[in-house]
Order: sequence, then C-alpha cells, then structure tokens
Amino acid sequence: MTAIAKYIDHTLLSSGATAQDVNKLCEEAVKYGFYAVCVQPIQVKTAVESLNGSQVKVAAVTGFPHGATYTEIKVAETKKCLADGANEIDMVINVGALKEGNLALVKDDISQIVNVCKGKATVKVIIETGLLTDEQKITACKLAVEAGADFVKTSTGVLKESKSATTEDVRLMHETVKSFGLLVKASGGIGDLSTAQAMIEAGASRIGTSSGIKIVTEK
Amino acid sequence: MTAIAKYIDHTLLSSGATAQDVNKLCEEAVKYGFYAVCVQPIQVKTAVESLNGSQVKVAAVTGFPHGATYTEIKVAETKKCLADGANEIDMVINVGALKEGNLALVKDDISQIVNVCKGKATVKVIIETGLLTDEQKITACKLAVEAGADFVKTSTGVLKESKSATTEDVRLMHETVKSFGLLVKASGGIGDLSTAQAMIEAGASRIGTSSGIKIVTEK
Repeated sequence: MTAIAKYIDHTLLSSGATAQDVNKLCEEAVKYGFYAVCVQPIQVKTAVESLNGSQVKVAAVTGFPHGATYTEIKVAETKKCLADGANEIDMVINVGALKEGNLALVKDDISQIVNVCKGKATVKVIIETGLLTDEQKITACKLAVEAGADFVKTSTGVLKESKSATTEDVRLMHETVKSFGLLVKASGGIGDLSTAQAMIEAGASRIGTSSGIKIVTEK
Repeated sequence: MTAIAKYIDHTLLSSGATAQDVNKLCEEAVKYGFYAVCVQPIQVKTAVESLNGSQVKVAAVTGFPHGATYTEIKVAETKKCLADGANEIDMVINVGALKEGNLALVKDDISQIVNVCKGKATVKVIIETGLLTDEQKITACKLAVEAGADFVKTSTGVLKESKSATTEDVRLMHETVKSFGLLVKASGGIGDLSTAQAMIEAGASRIGTSSGIKIVTEK
C-alpha cells in the first residue's frame, strides 16, 4: 500500500451503479487501503454491509450534485444516510443562493446538515469551484467554517456545466480554512498520481477520485 | 409565436441559477409562448410567483439527476415542489436498480411519485437513455406505464457520464408507450430547430431544452 492510498475516497457516483459495482468498489478499497468509499445515498447500506469489519469509511453524497433542493430535503436525506451507517456526508451547498448573496441561507443550509451529523459523521461541504469566482470560493469556505463543517470540498465532478478542480482552488481554499482547523478535499478530474500529488502539495487532505487504483499502482 | 413553442419546456437546471435567472426564464417563457419552464426544486416558488396569471406551467425535477436516492426522499421532495405550486414533476428513476433487474423497486419508486401527484401534477419519468441498452429502455418505459406515469423522458442532459437523446431513443420509447396513452419528452442536447423537429417527428410531444429561444427564432 502506498501512503497516498490513505488520502483517497474511492468514488462511484454513476446513476447506473449496481449493488455488484458497489461491492467491487468496497473490495478494492480494502485491498488498496483507501480511506473511504464515496457513494450515492441509495448505495450506503450496501457499502456499509460490504465493508463491515474493515477500516474503510463510507461517505455519502447529499443534495448531490446541484445542491438546489430544499434544506429540509437535504437534512432528511442525510438522516437516512446516517441511519444506514454513513460515516461521512459530502453535501452540496446552495450555489444559486451564494451567487445571489443570500449568505444566511447558504450558511443555514450547511449548519442544519452539521447539526444532524454532530457526533455521528464528518461533514464535507462541496462548493463547486468550477462555477464560482475566487471571491465566491472564499465566501463559501468562510460560511462552511462558521457553520462548523469539517471539510471544504472543491467539486462534484459529474456536471457538464462545471470544470475540474485546480491546484489554485485547493490552495485558496486551504489558505481560507486552515487556521480554523478545516481540511480540504480535492475532487473532480483527478485521474493520475501527479495530479493527486499536486493537490496534496496545494493543501488537500483528501482526494476524491474514481481513478484511485490507477493512482496507487502507477509506476 | 411559432407552433413549436408549445412543445418546449424552457429549462434552467444550473446549480448556479439565481432567482433573477429564474425570473428571466419565466419572462422569456411568457414572451415566446413556451409550454412550461423546467427548474430545480429550490426555484419552484420563484417560478410560480413569476408566472402567476400566465398559461405557462412550472415543471420541477426531483431525484435529479442521478435518481440514486431513497424513494422516501424523492417523495418528500416532490411533495415540497407540489406545495410550492409545481404543475409537473420530472423524476429520475433508480437506474442502478433497473440495471440490477430489481424491477419491483424501480416501479415502486415511480408509483410512489405518481401517487402523490395524482390530480395535482403531470409526472414525467426520466430514464436516462444514455446509460441504458435498448432492452433496458423498453423495460423502463413499461414500468412507467404500469406505475401510471404521464410521460417518459429521455435524459437529464446534465451528466458528464451520459449521452444526448437520439431520435432512435424517442422512436423506441414512443412505440413502447403510445398504445397506453403515455407521451414522450425528448431532452438532452437539443440545441436547434432541426433537432427539435426531428424529435417531434420521431414521436416526442414535449422538448426539454435550454435553447428554446434559439429554436423558435431560427430562420
């Protein structure tokens, strides 16, 4: 096992993922020593059962990938994921509200997820850097700090309209949150070892990728 | 106003859409005589208020775009959209369950949405053709028929992993559902008049697009 494996959330968010695919993902995560698997809500139970007895955590995405649903729905979805055994919640902010400058709404949305996860799960806040200005990225990170989240995360990685995470994004986010003890998860378009290493050098403590095996087995 | 306008769901599903963007979408829908606007759950209220007194309907997406959340969450989200005044619900099926052959789950997921919408809203069932075999497309359409939906819809149009709708998809879906009275909505990658016309010739009764103005103003 390479040291970088412990940075990786081994990720499968395809609409078409089956229980068989999730079981395979979990077997790979154990084999390669990844930190966690990252799956859709409907797959949490399968992943938790598959990983039973291992060190690998289960991260579930909520409000994913648009973040454009009601806070009440994000909270209810998060509660269901926790009930199914999720150890981490990767939630998407209300990007539109951020762009409108409705910061109270963005913060409350995050806070409510943090509240239901308290003592139960790590909360990662996906800000979707590919759609934001640098100023908006900083604002989103500050709101995640104020709301008491554990991580800020760059990207969903699945939307046509957005762009991959950059090392500049990770550096900016890390600079914004580090003094408050929050960590950065880099995700979206991280397909090889050199990109993963660059993200870690820029300040990422976690890497979300569906290319984990390629990354840890590269020569 | 061109005749094709009445086929169009004028669509804005970007994560970053603001209330201002939604108001503009609604003004355009009235101006050009589109059938409906199609928006994210968090934007339904804004759209309903903006369209108050017009003929234009409001369609909301739920379980969007992966369809990989709990049925209970899709139902709760749908109820909130209905409470905010949505006239149509475009829900995404559990694609993974379809691929596993867990057809009872796929059907129940649709049925529960149909039940909460009964007498209140039209239900469109997004099957995400870009991820399915022809056999799976037919199966998904039959389940939508059995569940009592009003429309089958080709695609979410937003996911990197998927592909645009094709006229072959629309034709196949239309052939599968027409004798049961269901209609077909073509969506995903419909960017010009000739593509929209081809979809209608293939059997589409509705077109989901963010290029509606371009389509109805093309010479």
